[in-house]
Amino acid sequence: MNHAADDEGRQIRAFVARWMDASKAGDVETLLDLLADDVVFLIPGREPMRKPEFERQARAQAGAGAPQIDGTAEVQEVQVAGDLAFAWTRLAVAVTPPGGAPIERRGYTLSVFRKVQGVWRLARDANLLVPPGTN
Amino acid sequence: MNHAADDEGRQIRAFVARWMDASKAGDVETLLDLLADDVVFLIPGREPMRKPEFERQARAQAGAGAPQIDGTAEVQEVQVAGDLAFAWTRLAVAVTPPGGAPIERRGYTLSVFRKVQGVWRLARDANLLVPPGTN
Repeated sequence: MNHAADDEGRQIRAFVARWMDASKAGDVETLLDLLADDVVFLIPGREPMRKPEFERQARAQAGAGAPQIDGTAEVQEVQVAGDLAFAWTRLAVAVTPPGGAPIERRGYTLSVFRKVQGVWRLARDANLLVPPGTN
Repeated sequence: MNHAADDEGRQIRAFVARWMDASKAGDVETLLDLLADDVVFLIPGREPMRKPEFERQARAQAGAGAPQIDGTAEVQEVQVAGDLAFAWTRLAVAVTPPGGAPIERRGYTLSVFRKVQGVWRLARDANLLVPPGTN
């Protein structure tokens, strides 16, 4: 891998770290800014979710009464070709509603990124997280 | 989209059709030939599966007592950049063991393809299929 590809890989890893930080902080504006306008989230058992629905859900969760979000993301691999990249990531997330018990999810995501005006954005995302112990 | 990209997109769609046909036919050699050597299958609730494990499972299912596999695959989108491409596909699959009832799964896959010596092969695949009615 050459230096340019190394640098792009670092940018994708930094993207994933920023995404986790913004999720934990409930920073909806940063999350939206990290998304391509035509982003598609694929989640088991439901129809694909696009940016307007993501925004509605993120805004509904933010503010007073917002759950506390914690977690870790370990990027397993990044590959870049021109303005497209993909990564898969091992994730562990805990969402704790005010006064409630944490809801944990673990597993992997497969994500496609697209460079838009020099900045990587999340374009397609498959979320394979399940409750711990699921098989 | 230019003609070259159109042509690559058609090749990916033809790949998905070949994959479904080989699955239905229990044609393990064709399935293996469609996979990159470093393929990774991501499936909810389990660790990533690589080519040797895929091959073991496929061979165990083939031959006498093999389940009958039926299904449809509707490619929703293909994007290509150089030797990388991704697609997401709506799938409905029914696996019927001999003398048993069909086991149905529906949902989406997000797949990354890589061109190896001029031929597209499946490199990474996230499988989001669930039993019908799951939510």
